[in-house]
Amino acid sequence: MHFASDNTSGVHPKIMEALVRANDGYAPAYAADRWSAELTERLRDLFQAPDALVWPMASGTGTNAALLGAMTPPWGTVYCHETAHIERDERNSVPFFSGGARLRPLPGRASRLDPERLRTEIAADRARDDIHASPPAAVSLTNLTEFGELYRPAEIAALADASGLPLHLDGARFANAIAASGASPWEMTRELSALSLGATKTGAMAAEAAVLFDPAPGEAFESQRMRSGHNLSKARYVSAQLLAWLEDDLWLELATQANAMGARLAQGLTEIGATLSHEAAGNLVFARLPRSLHLTAKARGAVYHLWGAGDLHTGDPTEPLLARFVASWSTTEADVDALLAAFSD
Amino acid sequence: MHFASDNTSGVHPKIMEALVRANDGYAPAYAADRWSAELTERLRDLFQAPDALVWPMASGTGTNAALLGAMTPPWGTVYCHETAHIERDERNSVPFFSGGARLRPLPGRASRLDPERLRTEIAADRARDDIHASPPAAVSLTNLTEFGELYRPAEIAALADASGLPLHLDGARFANAIAASGASPWEMTRELSALSLGATKTGAMAAEAAVLFDPAPGEAFESQRMRSGHNLSKARYVSAQLLAWLEDDLWLELATQANAMGARLAQGLTEIGATLSHEAAGNLVFARLPRSLHLTAKARGAVYHLWGAGDLHTGDPTEPLLARFVASWSTTEADVDALLAAFSD
Amino acid sequence: MHFASDNTSGVHPKIMEALVRANDGYAPAYAADRWSAELTERLRDLFQAPDALVWPMASGTGTNAALLGAMTPPWGTVYCHETAHIERDERNSVPFFSGGARLRPLPGRASRLDPERLRTEIAADRARDDIHASPPAAVSLTNLTEFGELYRPAEIAALADASGLPLHLDGARFANAIAASGASPWEMTRELSALSLGATKTGAMAAEAAVLFDPAPGEAFESQRMRSGHNLSKARYVSAQLLAWLEDDLWLELATQANAMGARLAQGLTEIGATLSHEAAGNLVFARLPRSLHLTAKARGAVYHLWGAGDLHTGDPTEPLLARFVASWSTTEADVDALLAAFSD
Amino acid sequence: MHFASDNTSGVHPKIMEALVRANDGYAPAYAADRWSAELTERLRDLFQAPDALVWPMASGTGTNAALLGAMTPPWGTVYCHETAHIERDERNSVPFFSGGARLRPLPGRASRLDPERLRTEIAADRARDDIHASPPAAVSLTNLTEFGELYRPAEIAALADASGLPLHLDGARFANAIAASGASPWEMTRELSALSLGATKTGAMAAEAAVLFDPAPGEAFESQRMRSGHNLSKARYVSAQLLAWLEDDLWLELATQANAMGARLAQGLTEIGATLSHEAAGNLVFARLPRSLHLTAKARGAVYHLWGAGDLHTGDPTEPLLARFVASWSTTEADVDALLAAFSD
Repeated sequence: MHFASDNTSGVHPKIMEALVRANDGYAPAYAADRWSAELTERLRDLFQAPDALVWPMASGTGTNAALLGAMTPPWGTVYCHETAHIERDERNSVPFFSGGARLRPLPGRASRLDPERLRTEIAADRARDDIHASPPAAVSLTNLTEFGELYRPAEIAALADASGLPLHLDGARFANAIAASGASPWEMTRELSALSLGATKTGAMAAEAAVLFDPAPGEAFESQRMRSGHNLSKARYVSAQLLAWLEDDLWLELATQANAMGARLAQGLTEIGATLSHEAAGNLVFARLPRSLHLTAKARGAVYHLWGAGDLHTGDPTEPLLARFVASWSTTEADVDALLAAFSD
Repeated sequence: MHFASDNTSGVHPKIMEALVRANDGYAPAYAADRWSAELTERLRDLFQAPDALVWPMASGTGTNAALLGAMTPPWGTVYCHETAHIERDERNSVPFFSGGARLRPLPGRASRLDPERLRTEIAADRARDDIHASPPAAVSLTNLTEFGELYRPAEIAALADASGLPLHLDGARFANAIAASGASPWEMTRELSALSLGATKTGAMAAEAAVLFDPAPGEAFESQRMRSGHNLSKARYVSAQLLAWLEDDLWLELATQANAMGARLAQGLTEIGATLSHEAAGNLVFARLPRSLHLTAKARGAVYHLWGAGDLHTGDPTEPLLARFVASWSTTEADVDALLAAFSD
Repeated sequence: MHFASDNTSGVHPKIMEALVRANDGYAPAYAADRWSAELTERLRDLFQAPDALVWPMASGTGTNAALLGAMTPPWGTVYCHETAHIERDERNSVPFFSGGARLRPLPGRASRLDPERLRTEIAADRARDDIHASPPAAVSLTNLTEFGELYRPAEIAALADASGLPLHLDGARFANAIAASGASPWEMTRELSALSLGATKTGAMAAEAAVLFDPAPGEAFESQRMRSGHNLSKARYVSAQLLAWLEDDLWLELATQANAMGARLAQGLTEIGATLSHEAAGNLVFARLPRSLHLTAKARGAVYHLWGAGDLHTGDPTEPLLARFVASWSTTEADVDALLAAFSD
Repeated sequence: MHFASDNTSGVHPKIMEALVRANDGYAPAYAADRWSAELTERLRDLFQAPDALVWPMASGTGTNAALLGAMTPPWGTVYCHETAHIERDERNSVPFFSGGARLRPLPGRASRLDPERLRTEIAADRARDDIHASPPAAVSLTNLTEFGELYRPAEIAALADASGLPLHLDGARFANAIAASGASPWEMTRELSALSLGATKTGAMAAEAAVLFDPAPGEAFESQRMRSGHNLSKARYVSAQLLAWLEDDLWLELATQANAMGARLAQGLTEIGATLSHEAAGNLVFARLPRSLHLTAKARGAVYHLWGAGDLHTGDPTEPLLARFVASWSTTEADVDALLAAFSD
């Protein structure tokens, strides 16, 4: 009944085996090893991006912040959704890595950026052209979104068009988005300047890839990666995780399983009378629950989080709560059914 | 017809005379002079705040940013209105001075912070109590607001109560706010932790006072003031401006004149059919104008800005424009009448 | 013949096994797991420091910078040796994490801080007591030093006494220092405020512990750890490495082996006529080599670095080169002998 | 007897008169005024630099830091003398403005950078070409130096050649250097990329010019100038000071007077048996004094500082003290003679 986050799950056995295999003798440090070189080749192929720059990373927050910090000057503006991880969950990582750039959080349904709102905001900011203003520098979006919805490639293209700015994608659940959309990795990324490709939530131990489709910010990124402590010495073990994750499309297999369990859960919650607050496109399911039902399930050992809830003892007891359930690559049908049972009479 | 800003006006003769008088022999540098010492005493008296710390400053942006940078840790959140100068007009000064703190810009009518919105936002942020979040640190408000409205003392008290956080006031037009409200400086500041007291827009050359009613962030402020280049060597000339500005309530006299001219202008604009978009509490007047009227007045030499307008050639020509007029201490009735004439047939 | 660095070696089998064992089901993310809790207990015991704060980390640079960034204000001074990793090898990590604090690099024999020089520098800086100055905040030392020498506990105590400041120890090779000195972990750390305890170079995959003996900077450290991307979600795998490393004194066993190989190499180099430039207390050996000998060994496949050498083609060809050899936990006698053979006729 | 600093003196009457003259009606804010435009023209002519970018500034520290912050990336190295104002007296301004760049303070006689030392350091740093290192970005020198010595144009050219890096000159006493050297402003600056041209110490109230001979860092500089609070609204009053200072070579007249008083003082100190520790090329005089002589002069009201002295009560009483005397544009022969008398029997 572990639905608190996909990062509470373990490491897929094939990835663990890859770590064991990589543990063979000496290898140059700091990503000068052969695994890291191969990773670059694999991702260039996957994204049909022969000039892309690739770095192995152990942290999604570090990857997001170092990429965005390289895409904006300290006096620039990065647009994102007001629920974005970079705005709400990284304790000011982007202002830190960028030397003080401004995040401009925008409202929008279901943690989606709205192209028209984005166009209007950026046009207004661009029109100022004033040393007092913070010029538009980049847009960051998340796919799957924080509320588990899916941007399809055409929607990303619409945001690129609306903004006229370099796009960064926080792909902590990129695998889930690909699996949910049926789009190819190339289709999903062709409008992007930069991608934080996350494997940790989808079966790895601590592995992300920073990908710069536009290599221009490469020196800045690599410098910030170094001075922020993300240039790990034994990088072969990060790259080896990513290679195993990509091998034989394991990443899609794991994401497909997580998504299927999300769908099963969404269906089951609906059947017991809960209301889904968002499209459950992948492995994240948001549902409104009566307070009593929540308390019952918690008492029965269900593990999940409430979104944006304060103190349960002081809020309005008749107001339904918004619960967030996350399925992972290791979630089974039995796990889902056990959770659903915790909500049943 | 100079209504672009109160910072296009000159220096009041009494302040200029004070500069000449201060130019007498040697004085210790870096605010160890007798003018600066007297300034502290004067402001402590004015605000009935015997423990307040006071520094002479030459820049409003520098004062805002160094104060707020001392009131929040790099990982904290400072709440402000989405039109606040610190959010829109300082090219990311607060993230710079604070080492990357987050401004959380909030919507609200007429560039006013709404107490209930503030309460809700802060309660939600506080409830998270999570290392991923950016904890609430301070609130910054502006009086007069960016749209020329007035916070009265009771409204500031409501914001203090709603937030439960240290309050900073951007007082670039503090004199206008006092003159408009009839409140005493003590009444207007008793809920504040920090004040950027601006004299430049109200008759000085380059003079602000940084005031910490709560002295706790004093070392941080003074350190940031130094390393940001705001510890001017010949500080006596800044303090002398402020002393002359305070002397015999010159500051209130000048603000009263500016406010009266604002009122005259607001009345006149109404009479010629323009619609005021905001309360014109002091010296700022915002009016919606038909595009044709704007173009006529500009052709006749009227000097003022449009708010948030992009390219006039591409926008909807039937949409009225939002014009911002600023009266200053040196604005005369004849100036107002000349401006109004530019809008007349 | 891999003597380029101890970070080119692999992961000790027992640590790899611990990773496999930790890969069992679900665990709370972000170091709320039982491995991380146990790590705190183990290190508190080891250092006889019941109030110490402990965090699992994957990066030595990140650990150094986040600790020091929490120990100094942005306007402070951190003293270190001019060859320290934080000064020469982290691409300005400490100014980054600290919001712009100053490293004050000091000369000193063999990358050792000299107590008298330290005392003099700090006394002079302290005497200024001036807002223009950058006040003394902390001292960082490295043990083993960058040149492989050893600080004994009494020498660390002398630096503590000379500085009167909080001490940070970069312990990338702490295990080697303990093994070389025979001192207990408590003896070696009792004067410290903070320790970067590195396991990566001594057999782990990517594992360090940040230890705050003085818990005062804890909130600042934890905040910077988060926003710099070092709060890894699946932290159990970092803590599990450290626990296995500590288990049954594996860490000392591995360090003892590395040190023994260092000694064997030092002895061998001396015998073939090379001059050791520094005490080879542990696993680092620095030797002056004739250029021809270096070229011969390189041609035979020896892998090691030169220290501070520029272009070999433009330097003085009669000047001996300074070579740095690093033995690791996995270095064997055969490895050492093969290397020595590469230098022989 | 005011010899503590040239910033304790007042404002020259002609500059004060220029302020009064500039106080005439309305002018565009933020250096869009005609005085600022004229300043650019005047300085382009003076330096024979038709493409130079010029900004009026009120702070030398702000000018230094914003220029250097624009000349280095956050991960770069700026070389300077270990006694430079930017290293010792600005409370970490350059790490602040640059987002964490490293100052590399170098020793050298009389606060002079030594070309050979500079060449060696930079060559060694350049040779590393490693993501761990902090690449060479710029050199900052000061003329007159902190100890009052003079770099002649050929010496600056030698530093440019030795470093191969963009040079910044802290010209807080640039006028004194020009007056002392007889070199033209063009000769003194032809090797520079950037100049902090200080007028405050030589008769202005608060006026410096930031000059970029190489315009490439212009956007970065202007952005940092804005967000650090140095884009003063009523900039006409800064530019007017600088124009008056340049008018009819007033600046050289004032510097010549200050230098002459420095020479008179140096001569007089020698005659009473003090030893000059440095060439007194301009208006700064450093002399070693017996402690008793110092105490006598202090008791008689002499105002000057000791350099690097700690507590007089604990130091070695037989060690001579190093006194720093600064003459200013307003220092008279009578002032010098009175000071000398304070040292006489």
